[in-house]
Amino acid sequence: MTDYAVIGRSAPRRDTLEKVTGQARYTLDVTLPGMIHAQVLRSPWPHARIRSIDASAAEALPGVRAVLTHQNTINTLFSTAATMMALPTGHQGVLDQRIFDSTVRFVGDEVAAVAADTLEIAAKALKLIEVDYEILPFVLDPEEAEKPESIALHPDKPELQYGHNVPGHPVEIKRGDVEKALAEADEVVELTFNLKPVKQMQMETMGAVAQVEGSGKINVWSTTQTTHPARAQLAHIFKIPTSRIRVMNPPYVGGGFGSRIGLSAKAEVIAVALALASRKPVKLTYTRTEDMIATDTRHGGQLKLRLGAKKDGTLTALDLRARLNKGAYCSFGHEIYGTTGHMNLSLYQIPNLYFKGYSVYTNTTTAGAYRGFGNPQGNLTVERGIEMMAARLGLDPLELRRKNATQKGGDYVLPYPCDSNAIQSCMTKGAESIGWHKRAEYNADKSGRLRRGLGMAIGTHYSNGFQLIVDYESAYITVQPDGSVNVATPISDIGTGCNTAVAQMAAEALGVPLESVFMIYADTDSTPFGYGAHSSRIVYAHGIAVAAAAREVRQKILEYAAGLCGRRAEELDLKCGMVRAKDGAASFPAELRRRQLFQEPGYAPPSGPDPLTEISLRDVALHAHSQNRQFIGVGQDPLTNSPPWHSVFADVTVDTETGQITVNKIAACHDVGRVINPSNMRGQILGGVLQGVGYALSEQLGYEPKTGRQTHTTMHHYMSPTALDIVDIDPITVEEDDPHGPFGAKGAGETTLVCPASAIVNAASNALGLDLTQVPLTPEYVLSMINRTC
Amino acid sequence: MTDYAVIGRSAPRRDTLEKVTGQARYTLDVTLPGMIHAQVLRSPWPHARIRSIDASAAEALPGVRAVLTHQNTINTLFSTAATMMALPTGHQGVLDQRIFDSTVRFVGDEVAAVAADTLEIAAKALKLIEVDYEILPFVLDPEEAEKPESIALHPDKPELQYGHNVPGHPVEIKRGDVEKALAEADEVVELTFNLKPVKQMQMETMGAVAQVEGSGKINVWSTTQTTHPARAQLAHIFKIPTSRIRVMNPPYVGGGFGSRIGLSAKAEVIAVALALASRKPVKLTYTRTEDMIATDTRHGGQLKLRLGAKKDGTLTALDLRARLNKGAYCSFGHEIYGTTGHMNLSLYQIPNLYFKGYSVYTNTTTAGAYRGFGNPQGNLTVERGIEMMAARLGLDPLELRRKNATQKGGDYVLPYPCDSNAIQSCMTKGAESIGWHKRAEYNADKSGRLRRGLGMAIGTHYSNGFQLIVDYESAYITVQPDGSVNVATPISDIGTGCNTAVAQMAAEALGVPLESVFMIYADTDSTPFGYGAHSSRIVYAHGIAVAAAAREVRQKILEYAAGLCGRRAEELDLKCGMVRAKDGAASFPAELRRRQLFQEPGYAPPSGPDPLTEISLRDVALHAHSQNRQFIGVGQDPLTNSPPWHSVFADVTVDTETGQITVNKIAACHDVGRVINPSNMRGQILGGVLQGVGYALSEQLGYEPKTGRQTHTTMHHYMSPTALDIVDIDPITVEEDDPHGPFGAKGAGETTLVCPASAIVNAASNALGLDLTQVPLTPEYVLSMINRTC
Repeated sequence: MTDYAVIGRSAPRRDTLEKVTGQARYTLDVTLPGMIHAQVLRSPWPHARIRSIDASAAEALPGVRAVLTHQNTINTLFSTAATMMALPTGHQGVLDQRIFDSTVRFVGDEVAAVAADTLEIAAKALKLIEVDYEILPFVLDPEEAEKPESIALHPDKPELQYGHNVPGHPVEIKRGDVEKALAEADEVVELTFNLKPVKQMQMETMGAVAQVEGSGKINVWSTTQTTHPARAQLAHIFKIPTSRIRVMNPPYVGGGFGSRIGLSAKAEVIAVALALASRKPVKLTYTRTEDMIATDTRHGGQLKLRLGAKKDGTLTALDLRARLNKGAYCSFGHEIYGTTGHMNLSLYQIPNLYFKGYSVYTNTTTAGAYRGFGNPQGNLTVERGIEMMAARLGLDPLELRRKNATQKGGDYVLPYPCDSNAIQSCMTKGAESIGWHKRAEYNADKSGRLRRGLGMAIGTHYSNGFQLIVDYESAYITVQPDGSVNVATPISDIGTGCNTAVAQMAAEALGVPLESVFMIYADTDSTPFGYGAHSSRIVYAHGIAVAAAAREVRQKILEYAAGLCGRRAEELDLKCGMVRAKDGAASFPAELRRRQLFQEPGYAPPSGPDPLTEISLRDVALHAHSQNRQFIGVGQDPLTNSPPWHSVFADVTVDTETGQITVNKIAACHDVGRVINPSNMRGQILGGVLQGVGYALSEQLGYEPKTGRQTHTTMHHYMSPTALDIVDIDPITVEEDDPHGPFGAKGAGETTLVCPASAIVNAASNALGLDLTQVPLTPEYVLSMINRTC
Repeated sequence: MTDYAVIGRSAPRRDTLEKVTGQARYTLDVTLPGMIHAQVLRSPWPHARIRSIDASAAEALPGVRAVLTHQNTINTLFSTAATMMALPTGHQGVLDQRIFDSTVRFVGDEVAAVAADTLEIAAKALKLIEVDYEILPFVLDPEEAEKPESIALHPDKPELQYGHNVPGHPVEIKRGDVEKALAEADEVVELTFNLKPVKQMQMETMGAVAQVEGSGKINVWSTTQTTHPARAQLAHIFKIPTSRIRVMNPPYVGGGFGSRIGLSAKAEVIAVALALASRKPVKLTYTRTEDMIATDTRHGGQLKLRLGAKKDGTLTALDLRARLNKGAYCSFGHEIYGTTGHMNLSLYQIPNLYFKGYSVYTNTTTAGAYRGFGNPQGNLTVERGIEMMAARLGLDPLELRRKNATQKGGDYVLPYPCDSNAIQSCMTKGAESIGWHKRAEYNADKSGRLRRGLGMAIGTHYSNGFQLIVDYESAYITVQPDGSVNVATPISDIGTGCNTAVAQMAAEALGVPLESVFMIYADTDSTPFGYGAHSSRIVYAHGIAVAAAAREVRQKILEYAAGLCGRRAEELDLKCGMVRAKDGAASFPAELRRRQLFQEPGYAPPSGPDPLTEISLRDVALHAHSQNRQFIGVGQDPLTNSPPWHSVFADVTVDTETGQITVNKIAACHDVGRVINPSNMRGQILGGVLQGVGYALSEQLGYEPKTGRQTHTTMHHYMSPTALDIVDIDPITVEEDDPHGPFGAKGAGETTLVCPASAIVNAASNALGLDLTQVPLTPEYVLSMINRTC
């Protein structure tokens, strides 16, 4: 692989100092003069029609500046998710939310909002709002909800043609003849996998500050992962031109994991509506409980798999069906199963494939995007099936995967080519790290209370949404008169360190030191359109756009410098901020050396050779400035995609008396192409694996059957692994340049969370010699499986 | 001339609503959480060395967060003016200011600053700072200051080689042989013109709010007219990369008239220094008195003219010398006399020309840029000389000007061509409006107390600084998915309405309605480099850049639309936001019509013909968005300049008993090429003329000879004309497209203030039959001239 000066180094994250000193500014920190505070009244009922609302007492409370209900608020239909923005042909997002609706559909659904001088007054005002509810029957289970006799959540939606409580068309993928292949297979494995919804539990809850300028322009600081799409959504909702709205991250966002692709639930819309009503800046911050009950979850649901193989282990058929629980509103519930199918039908070269996925409305919290976007659900199911098939055939599951895994150049169901694929190396290195050869040894003794087992899984993902969704990116680069470089990008750094990686790519593509590159980001006024921080797309899609802008700037610099030394641009090189001839023989006038933009009296440029054989970008930029030139580049994403590949191996011990599972080690081996910043990549792997441990073992959202209330509404009840729960993780990367990615890089954000749970479920199944088919693997479930009699 | 859809119309100013409702946000309105307040300690002495400062009592005062003096503040040499930024060859600005210096050079010079929790605490702290001054001799008059025996203000400056207290090289212009031509002339007129310094008196005083982010990035909201140059200056002063500073207008600036080209005096530097010291946001707002005593004035001084002519009125020689009063620091005092010479040697086609200009340090308030930038001073002198010559030759001064005025294509001393020139029409129309034919009639009766007279003047100016200084401009244009257009420009609207005119040019060049164009401006993070709001350059230089960006975007739109209808881009047209074929026969699929970015259920596009013969930009933009495309254009100024021309005629009555002059009417006739917004142009003329009336009749800054204190330090004492003093003004434009300007337009900002005072002085001289040769024409001066015995 090529040697690079800046990329491939673990440059320290640029946000570190601000974050560790508490100076980093988040939406919660945004305070404007005259700003007032908002609180939201939420439904106590899972399903009800609002007969009437009397807000007069709340409005009369001193210090209250605005009270909004469905009776006095714009009622545009929208989706808080940046659902895939109307395409002239094909896929349309489902719009089914209003700021406030006359029907509430889950416990926590928004009924009204108050803006007042203080949070306390606002809270008091909420209690003065009298709502007369007509309580309706409700349904919590998607299988139930799908039955025609079940109550309809959105009875008047035209998209419901696809099934009762099923809006939007299902995704179907078909290749070959699965039924015939299954009938002809030597072995067929069937399984049903059950999944609970889980929460992203990002550090910062949803929040927004909205301000209406005198001109009518609306400024919004928010926790969105996608400033430009959020702006477009607000324009749609409030029926004003996009250009009259400015959406900014402040610039920091305390994590996202998909929870705020588009709007931050209803934080922005309620803040804007209240700001328009009160003509004062309004801040709305969700409490943790509000975040848990009223913002998107990961879809739970049920998946069914049938897998057919020949005796020799050749996989011949795969049939996967997914019915996901959408919750009360659609959000990304209309797109997510596309990923479930596409990703998990692409792992193996199987001639006969079938997938059907859809999701169903229920009176629970809306499900949406969460790191992996439907991929982990399918991976749990397919990778469980692979291990079951290996057991059935008496094969090593590693070897079964090796034999069938998709190869580079393989013809798979993804709408982009597989032009890089190091999955075989990933399997080799992961197996080595976990000590896969000990699997038989661990399995030999099934007598003790503690049983050890190994399991694995492989996965792929995308490097942005291209061809599955609208997905593109842009960037501006300007060189300042002092040679420092501004990179303006629409993408926020939501905690991934991506802005360090993007700066590295800009520095590399330009040929300047990282220290001279500065980022401006996530402000819709400062940047061209971009799709935001999600879909593993930042380093890849955004990296391509930034590198393109940098190359345009570099070319302009070299052309200008060529004029200074009488050579041609292609004879010159820019490296580490210095322009020189490739042959070392350029002659730049020495008088250009380190001149000052503002030349203090007595200033004398440093002495040295005359003419010079090299000249700094700073000197070129200042000369250009004096000649009325600034180097400006605009980069756009040239529209491509590439699959990252990975294998995750788990070593677990199951306590057969308590049902408790201990993760001894995870080896996570990733082919993400060229690694731009190894330290950041390591962080992605550690974070993804730990989220996967929580998904496998402890995390879930439940609902009380009688009241429809969520049972896990605080961090105390919702058991995410904490820093103290970190397990032994071996983060491994296999670097193989991808031909499409910037500097050979591929997406790395979500891929790390696709397989860990699958590997743990497989390892626990292996330890117990049982087929575990749900997450989380609660002790209760594990014990019930151990004690199962049939 | 071509017909345009958007330009040439008096589109209402976009800031009107915000301004009349008091919602427009100025620097004074910027308030940040935790913000503290600054006050400045100023020298009571016109010239002193600071022996010592004891700030300990101030520092100990509760609520004081930082006290800065020359002892603890970075001491970079700089200029508050955006003095012409080091050129690799040639002209260098003079840097002679420090934030705080150990020598003070005028009454009001900065000694120390305090930031405290309240303004009151800061004011109290100022009084606790003990300064031990060694009082030095001082000099107020430039003629005195130039003498070698006079005290040197900046004794150690290497630029002082040009003369005692004269930094920077004088400007000399030479053509032909003036001495020989004067000797051979039939008539020679000699005169000396004396000018007092005057103030811009912009509505908003100097101010800045500075904030240091946790990352070290510095945000500055300020009253600067030039955000990008101000950023470069701050980077120089605080020795950090330009890219680490963001300078913004908030976005409004309450006028400028040149007073804050570069920094807003020391508002930004002191606010930034205090923010760095206290690590809190700091606001500093100058009082009106501080604005008057410690921010740049218009140069006073003395000009000498010798003018030679043949009997027939052919001008043969012009010799102009300018010695201007620089004040205590150089500011633009090094550049301004270039304009004095270049502009006023370009009015007439005279074969023998000489000009020498320079300026001299004195212990008075620094002089700098003020609308016209040295031009009015020269114009008063030359145009007075022309009328004196006409009287001497017995010719009508209008005819003398007609005969000698520079023609289109003329070879003059300006470094850009004269490719448009309607000065003859301007003279015809102005003379008609003022009733020039009545001049003899008014002059016939010299018996009454009230004497009426007519006078006139002609002038030229530039349309930006190109070729005299570094001057360039850039713009970004992006089309949003909803078809609305964002124009991002580095130029602020300091009250001229230019952002309405710029939006008009963008709309015209693109081919969209003005309503769909929105401006983002004056934020260094959002925009590429631009030189700011000054030098009559906005409509011209910035218009060229914006129109270039718009044309790039337009071309991309047409190319994209061509793909939608199977035609070639050059066969299509974009007008009023609709794309159609020039032959009317394009076929766009009807399904593109008014689709929605977020398509609500049940949405059906409007019915109508299929295929369509035209399609909206909105529909094209949305389709492009769905295909991962955004139309982005970058425009840069292609570096040109053009001279606007104008004539001003004045009708005055002089009361010979009181010396009071009444302006009966001013006819101001302007050739500014194509007028982009007639209403704005009218505003420019009315404002310029009224400032000229003040300059001619009442405004001046004086100094007490014994203390060096300014005598006019409040609005009460400084007699600017108010709205009630408006005179009868006939604003006339002669439109003739300039071949270089955008849509034929030329600069119009400063040109309106070049001639009014000259015309009034000439009219008053005509009324009295005397040669008045100073401004202001105070009653005292007029009476002294009437009563002069020799």
